[in-house]
Amino acid sequence: MKILITGGAGFLGQRLAHALLKSEPGQTFTEIVLADIAPLRDAALMAETRIVSATGELTRLLADGVLHGADGVFHLAAAVSGECEADIDVGLRANLDSTRALLDACRKLKKPPRVVFSSSLAVYGGDMPDVIADNTLPMPQNSYGTQKFICEQLIADYTRKGYIDGRSVRLPTVTVRPGKPNKAASGFMSGIIREPLAGVEAICPVDPATGVWITSPRFAVQGLIAAFETPTEKCTGRIAMNLPGLSVRVSEMLESLARVGGTQAASRVRMQKDETISRIVGGWPWRFNTTRARGLGLTGPAAMDDIVAEYIADYPEAVRRAG
Amino acid sequence: MKILITGGAGFLGQRLAHALLKSEPGQTFTEIVLADIAPLRDAALMAETRIVSATGELTRLLADGVLHGADGVFHLAAAVSGECEADIDVGLRANLDSTRALLDACRKLKKPPRVVFSSSLAVYGGDMPDVIADNTLPMPQNSYGTQKFICEQLIADYTRKGYIDGRSVRLPTVTVRPGKPNKAASGFMSGIIREPLAGVEAICPVDPATGVWITSPRFAVQGLIAAFETPTEKCTGRIAMNLPGLSVRVSEMLESLARVGGTQAASRVRMQKDETISRIVGGWPWRFNTTRARGLGLTGPAAMDDIVAEYIADYPEAVRRAG
Repeated sequence: MKILITGGAGFLGQRLAHALLKSEPGQTFTEIVLADIAPLRDAALMAETRIVSATGELTRLLADGVLHGADGVFHLAAAVSGECEADIDVGLRANLDSTRALLDACRKLKKPPRVVFSSSLAVYGGDMPDVIADNTLPMPQNSYGTQKFICEQLIADYTRKGYIDGRSVRLPTVTVRPGKPNKAASGFMSGIIREPLAGVEAICPVDPATGVWITSPRFAVQGLIAAFETPTEKCTGRIAMNLPGLSVRVSEMLESLARVGGTQAASRVRMQKDETISRIVGGWPWRFNTTRARGLGLTGPAAMDDIVAEYIADYPEAVRRAG
Repeated sequence: MKILITGGAGFLGQRLAHALLKSEPGQTFTEIVLADIAPLRDAALMAETRIVSATGELTRLLADGVLHGADGVFHLAAAVSGECEADIDVGLRANLDSTRALLDACRKLKKPPRVVFSSSLAVYGGDMPDVIADNTLPMPQNSYGTQKFICEQLIADYTRKGYIDGRSVRLPTVTVRPGKPNKAASGFMSGIIREPLAGVEAICPVDPATGVWITSPRFAVQGLIAAFETPTEKCTGRIAMNLPGLSVRVSEMLESLARVGGTQAASRVRMQKDETISRIVGGWPWRFNTTRARGLGLTGPAAMDDIVAEYIADYPEAVRRAG
């Protein structure tokens, strides 16, 4: 079975590739193509014979036949919320046009491939109920969310037409991401844990009372794979599915940092409000009813302490010895 | 004030142009450009000095500067449901790509133009509540509805960014349309009234118990103009607004035809089920809560008899003397 992961050299793409290589529940992944605009840097993946790295704009890679013979796709590639908000054209090109090119390439395959599209809680905003369900009307309040929601519609229609076997899942914010900060408005949710643990100061740009909806890298990858493996007949409806996550306030995230990472680490977080980030993140919902996903056996992290502990366990080299 | 009407040589576009020329509530329309892929054939409009006809693909017309200096846009142009269902590429090009080209052209104007986007009840389908409200999640079950819903999202985001002052309104099926049948799945709703009144046999392709959500041409045009004239501060939220209409069963439409147009006319309707049309139309909702639109003073037809009478009054030349 050949799999294409778009955004495959990104953090989540690489984690997903590792997970697919390790666990093969009923599937044999003979080839995993990691397509990304950035080159693959993960040495372990580069050394693996089943991994093929393809670097460039997705639309060009598709024209060059990167999808040829694929059985499945994880479509993770996207311009992030900050970029999309700064330049609507960048977002439309990277998120909408690329997705259309991908869907059209899928349609040309002999057998409709299974496609998991990673959407986001950023589709929500505006006047919302207290608890979001899968049938809550998204009213995106930023261009990134708009573009993700549009792509969900395309995935649904191409699935209805039988061109693909698609599933859209909305990921909670994935925290803690390793590495450097990105331009996502949600970036600080990783930063306020990652940087202090590395002995570096971090800025918290929102009110600590802000509630957020997060999941850990392990659960995010687990959710993507579970969505891929769900038999078609169990996919009830074609609307996007909100993946399980954890509803937590930023203040609780910082308390967990102190508890699990030490008070010295926690002291490295400085409060400095950023109006743009506060507005974007403050407009996202943070309480969800994920009955549909849980009915398929999907789960999320149980507590913030677990999320901090997972990061320390998965990225020991990025953590300074607790002081 | 210069206005661009896309789909301006179409039935609704021409009716709208006539209405704008006649009633000028506070506005002076110095120029109304009717952009359409088909040439304008309405002699009265062609003779009017304030009317400019522009024939060609919308994207090309925009590149040629058709929007230059415009203050407002009514975006009615679209490939209809039957065409979109038969060829997804045709629909994506005509409905999605053209709308993007229009929005980008709007963004280049000195002052953000007011834009009314005519969407459709076809965005709805699948598992729905009994009564549709503006905040009901659309789950389009056909490509036309998908594309309309996607365009609503773009209109909302460009409005949020301040590039346009946009409003999306979802029209009920506009009945009775004069002239020749088009490829819309909803086409029969006009055909079963229009053809019998002209002395021609018509086919009813759905079960007479099918419920539909319709409005008359006069109310549709009135709704579009009212949406255009609504002050920005009164546009609460950016989600699409369902326009008022009439919930009616096809059997009741035929009863009105007999009552208003005569029993001989009614006898010209032949029942012959079409599975594709039945599936598409049967999947559309037909009961709506239009509180938001009615709060802005918008109304719909009171009864089916009025709709038949309106057609006979507006298109006397198309009606054979009742037998």
